[in-house]
Formats: sequence, C-alpha cells, structure tokens
Amino acid sequence: MSTAVSPLAPTVVPDMPVIAGVKLATAAAGIRYKGRTDVLLAVMDKGTTVAGVFTRSKCPSAPVEWCRAKLGRGGARALVVNSGNANAFTGKTGRQATTLTASIAAKAVACSPNEVFLASTGVIGEPLDATKFDGVLGTLAGQAVPGEWMGAARAIMTTDTFPKVATATVKLGKAKVTINGMAKGAGMIAPDMATMLAFVFTDAPLSASTLQSLLKSGVEDTFNAVTIDGDTSTSDTLLAFATGAAAASGAPKISRAGDPRLKAFTKAFRAVLADLAEQVARDGEGARKLVEIVVEGATTKASARKIAMSVANSPLVKTAIAGEDANWGRVVMAVGKAGEPANRDKLSISFNGIRVARSGARDPSYDEAEVSATMKNPKIQIRIALGLGKGRDRVLTCDLTKEYVAINGDYRS
Amino acid sequence: MSTAVSPLAPTVVPDMPVIAGVKLATAAAGIRYKGRTDVLLAVMDKGTTVAGVFTRSKCPSAPVEWCRAKLGRGGARALVVNSGNANAFTGKTGRQATTLTASIAAKAVACSPNEVFLASTGVIGEPLDATKFDGVLGTLAGQAVPGEWMGAARAIMTTDTFPKVATATVKLGKAKVTINGMAKGAGMIAPDMATMLAFVFTDAPLSASTLQSLLKSGVEDTFNAVTIDGDTSTSDTLLAFATGAAAASGAPKISRAGDPRLKAFTKAFRAVLADLAEQVARDGEGARKLVEIVVEGATTKASARKIAMSVANSPLVKTAIAGEDANWGRVVMAVGKAGEPANRDKLSISFNGIRVARSGARDPSYDEAEVSATMKNPKIQIRIALGLGKGRDRVLTCDLTKEYVAINGDYRS
Repeated sequence: MSTAVSPLAPTVVPDMPVIAGVKLATAAAGIRYKGRTDVLLAVMDKGTTVAGVFTRSKCPSAPVEWCRAKLGRGGARALVVNSGNANAFTGKTGRQATTLTASIAAKAVACSPNEVFLASTGVIGEPLDATKFDGVLGTLAGQAVPGEWMGAARAIMTTDTFPKVATATVKLGKAKVTINGMAKGAGMIAPDMATMLAFVFTDAPLSASTLQSLLKSGVEDTFNAVTIDGDTSTSDTLLAFATGAAAASGAPKISRAGDPRLKAFTKAFRAVLADLAEQVARDGEGARKLVEIVVEGATTKASARKIAMSVANSPLVKTAIAGEDANWGRVVMAVGKAGEPANRDKLSISFNGIRVARSGARDPSYDEAEVSATMKNPKIQIRIALGLGKGRDRVLTCDLTKEYVAINGDYRS
Repeated sequence: MSTAVSPLAPTVVPDMPVIAGVKLATAAAGIRYKGRTDVLLAVMDKGTTVAGVFTRSKCPSAPVEWCRAKLGRGGARALVVNSGNANAFTGKTGRQATTLTASIAAKAVACSPNEVFLASTGVIGEPLDATKFDGVLGTLAGQAVPGEWMGAARAIMTTDTFPKVATATVKLGKAKVTINGMAKGAGMIAPDMATMLAFVFTDAPLSASTLQSLLKSGVEDTFNAVTIDGDTSTSDTLLAFATGAAAASGAPKISRAGDPRLKAFTKAFRAVLADLAEQVARDGEGARKLVEIVVEGATTKASARKIAMSVANSPLVKTAIAGEDANWGRVVMAVGKAGEPANRDKLSISFNGIRVARSGARDPSYDEAEVSATMKNPKIQIRIALGLGKGRDRVLTCDLTKEYVAINGDYRS
C-alpha cells in the first residue's frame, strides 16, 4: 500500500493563527499505532459554546451518542479525539469507555463531564481501553498551548496522507475574529473504519443556537456534498466551538444566526467548511482525480443533488475517470438510475467545459482528441444539464482506482 | 484484461431441449466485434404470447422503448438481439434504427413489425447502423433451427466470460412443458455499456397477461435481487415468450396466473429465472467470490431488501470480501447507512454460518482462525439478524476486485 501524499494535496498549507480561549496538546497513547501521536486534547475557556452535526447512520458509535446527548446542555471545556480505535459497535463497554474518558478529561481540565466532547476514529468493533487516557489527559492539560494546530490535525489522521487545516479571519462588528478548522478524511486500512471528523473553533461570541444554525446550514453544500465511495461511517462528527474571547476586543455577542452583523462571518465560516470538505475529497483513498459533478436544469435543488450523488457514487463513472475516459454513456446511465425526473432527449453533458452530448445524443462537434487531452487533468468537472427547471447542485468526489481496492482489500495478504 | 472464464462459472451446462414453436439462428454481422457472432434471430410460431420487464432507468435505450410500446398489442413472431451496440442515447437515429430493424425482421419472418421484439447491448451513444441487418435477418430466418440454444446464448454476450442458459421441464395438466432461458450479464468494456438481457421461452399455452404476471412476480426475488456494482443499465430487458405448442399434446390453456394448474409451472419458471440471475452474479466483472446477503428480523421484507442492497453495494464490504476478510465492522456500517430501522445493540452478523458479532458487539466465542478459513471459500454468505421483526430477504452479489477497476478503467491505456 502506498503511503505517499495524495497528488491532489493542496500545495500551500496556511499559517494557523492562535484562537484566544483554545489550547491544544497531543500525545502518543499507543491506542493502536506505534511511533505517532493518537490523542488530541483541546481545552477551551469557560463560556465556550458548542454545536455539532453527526452521521445519519442508524448504528452510530458510542462517542457520537455521547456528543448528541451533551449538546444543548451547556458549554464545552474539553474535546478529546483519539485515532486508532473508533469505539463503534462495542456495546455496553463502548458506553463505559466514553463515560470513563469524559471523567478523566473532566478531572484534567477541572470541569464537568457534561462539558467534555469526544470523537474516536479507527478500528470498529474492538473495545477501546479508556484507561490508557488516565494520566495522559492530565499531562496534556498541563502542556496545552494555543498554537498546536498542525500537531492536532496530524494526531487525528488515520489513512489520510496529509493533515487538513483551514483558517479565515473576518470582521465581526469592528473586531477581528478568527475561524480555524481541522479535518480527517475518508480512509480505510486494516480493519480500520475511517471516518470524517472535523472540528472548527472560533473566538467569536456566538450563542450555541447560533453556532448550531451556522453549522447545519453550512454543512449542506460542503461536507454533505462530498462522497468518496458512498459508504457512510458510523462515526462522522463535525463539532464547532466558539470561545467568545473576541468579545474582549469589542466583538458583539450574537444570539441568532439571522443577525445581519453575522453576514461576513457566515460566509467565512462556510468557506472554512468548504475548504476542509474539498481536502477530504482530495485525500480519498487511492484518489488520482478530484471530480466535481455539477447538475443544472433539474426540477429542484434536491433532485439535482440526488442525480449528482448518483453520478458521483457510480463505480462505472469513477473507474472511467480513473482511466481518463470521458465516458458520457456511463453518466447517462447514472442519471437514469437516480430515479429523479430526467428527459433523455434534453440531456447534455460536458467534461471540463467541452460538451460531448446534447439533446439526447452525441454532440456532432465533439472532438475526441480535445476531450482525451482534458481528461489528463487532475481535476475533472462533469457538467450535466437536464433542461427541465432551475434546480442546481454540485458535489465533489474522486476517481475509483486499483489503489482503492488495494487499500481496502489487500491488507490481509 | 483477462478473458479467462470466471472461476465462479457453473461446472455443468445443461442440455437445452427443443421448445416446439421456437427456432433460432445467429450470424456475425460485424456490428462491432470481429470474428464472433453478434446477432440472434428467434422465430416464433403464430399464436406466441409475450411479456416483458425492463430497466427502471429514466434514460432507457431505444429498443426498451420499442418493446414497451409493442407489449400488449398482440403476439410475438420474432426477437432480434444484437451485441456490440446498445442503441442507447442515440436520439432520433436510435428510434429510426429500431423501426428499420423491426421492418427488416418483419419482412424476413413474414409478420407485422408490431410482432417483432428487439434488444441491443454494447456501446452506448453510438448510432446503430441497422442497414447491417438487411439481408442478414432474411438469411437467418431461412437457417433458423430449434436446437441452437448455446449459439444463441453466445451471440448475445459482451464481456460475459461464459454463456448463460437454464432449462426446466414440468407437467402442465398431463402434458410435459419446457422452459428454456438464456441471459447475458453485467460486464462493461471499452465504452461498452453492459446490460442484463434475458429471454425465456416456453411451449406452455399461456395468455399474455398470465405470462406478464409470472414474469413480474418471478423477477422480484431473482433478477431484481442481484447487483454487481449498483449501476443500472439503460437497456436491461427480460422478455418471455410462450408458443402454446404444448396444447397439441394436451396442455391446458391458462388465462390467469392464479390458475391452480399452474403451480408446478410457476415454481419451475421461477427456478429458471433464479438460475440465470445467479449466473449473472457469478460472472460479475472481475468477480472471484459469489456473495449472498441474507437479512432477517427486519421490520418488513422491503426493509430487509434495502438493507441487503446497501450491504451488497458497499464498496468497502465488497473489497473486504475480495481480501478474504470477515470485516463485520463494514457490514455494520452498511446496515447503518441504509436508513432503515436497525438497532445496533440487537444486531448479529455471521459469515458462512459463523457468528462474529451479536448484541451490538463482537461475539466472545468468535474464532479468528475459523473465520479466516471460511473466507477462502468461493461462496460467502453474510447473514444479518436485526432482531426487530419478521422481514427477511436475500440478494446476490460478487466481490470488488482490482480486476473490476482494470476492466472498467484501464481500457484506454
């Protein structure tokens, strides 16, 4: 299996500024991996609000259930993330592990366990030995510093080939506020279940309900519009924390997402989510092409999303892109199987702006050499015009390569 | 690309008996392939009834639209199938090609074009030059003989690695009647769009509506319960023809599917469909394992089907099986993402009868060596017990190998 960095990795990694009220520390607790960090502790100041969105899986992990139960009950003082073990499908012992981890963290940070948030990623079905956190979290609480963003992004990786961070600075009222995010992506190795985990922090003074609204609307066209293989983890977690520290420099306290003063912040917050989500697609297992599916002319946006997802998850479309083939026949197939309104004879399809099919048949002006050349690009856009209405949507995915099968199937041999 | 016969191919090929009232002939018309047959003409006696079920794609091929329009308008005298070109997404020229093909066949067989049924499989989006059938179909009508079943099954293949036939003989009243079927499976090559095509013939005297009922109910747990990669062809077609010739030897004429005299026939008809459908799964592209997903204890059968399909189409489950890993964590994931009622803490999962998970956690008696050994079998059964109700279902699929990616992605290089 290749451990080389994805050829689609961003070439520039941003400098991550400090966020007042957040300190970070990482450790190698030996959960599963050797010779690398696998625990992250984030310590937040009193008054930090929290919001979260989670996997829609009917079989969620124990940490997902823990976080869901704690949201809306107060603030957040600590976040504990471990890689190497997902604490998923671990029955009663899974719940015991979350309770124990939260109580160890609460003691380390001097807060209530209800103010501790948890996320785990790694092997599924193996009991997580939470006693390994004993001592470790106490030490980390003492070591936590404001600038440890890259170390934090590295500690939460599983089969990711690069750490994923994003940042934005924006005015809220007359004060400068900052948004920092980190994510880990969809990768699977050994019997490890990969997971999308993402954490966003800001010093803006936002109420929990404001933060929850921003997260819920922000996720729709970012993290929810990315697919690697159509498989949904039991553990997907996106948490946002707002320390409110910028109030000291004059940032207004915001208690509803509709507040007009929040406009620039909302845009920047969404940009951070979009940046992280795109990095997840760029680090899809075995990915060699970043693929953007744009559907327009659908009856509704929801219909456009379903069609885009049908194309993005089609193994035949994805293998064709891996083979650098503008196989629009397979795109037609994937549009047709989505079950959404579509009229074959109005359909047109473009690859990187070159129209290959229109009005239900091959475009007569289609130049095979030109299309072949564009398919060699690392980024491929498939644009599908349905010609029915004004519904439009966009999703990101990657190609399906033999490397994907090797990563997910060969580990036993 | 490998052209070796699938290791999952049946070891015994049945002798295909004659069906009175059906004659078959094949030719090499040079539609796309060189050095192999690519056209099948079946000629049926007057009085033959016909029924059909088709792809649910919203972008169906021209022959699918042709057949849909002709069903219920009378009998069938001819079936023309070509491989090499699917006549799909070909716009107006596609409709012209079906009309021309039917008129050539009608002249050859001396019937109305409305009594001609058509199916095409192969490349999508390329105009089908139906003038190639001129002359060819006339010659075939003269050459057609009752025994050409294996030749017919070979002429309709695309990336199939073996011809697929099945047969059953059963009593209808006091007469012996026969059911013969052939199919081609899910394979994709070059820009060829593969397609499931299947044709079933019987000499039983059944009304068209009886045949349609049998087909509709028979397909549900056979062809509709098979998936290779979750991608649905624009051209999937299953046609059934009943010549009624067995009436001469005393078989009663049946005009409704509920007729009690039809019990044994219904069972045999379904067995032929099930046999063909299983052969399609056994010849999935790159398949090395035949995989049966059994879901029980669901709230309903429909819910069990959705969960079984979610598992069967999961790339992560399929790659794990390719890697001979009983990765039940991925099965949990796929159950969880199906969106159907499931209770993690009641779930149990077995591989080939060996229970690996129960009550929401790893089975304590789980013997890794025993499970590893069973995963080396060419047939893998995953049994998922949800513990919620009495809903039960079963689907067939195959594993996802690097060979699949090679077949579908490497053809350009």
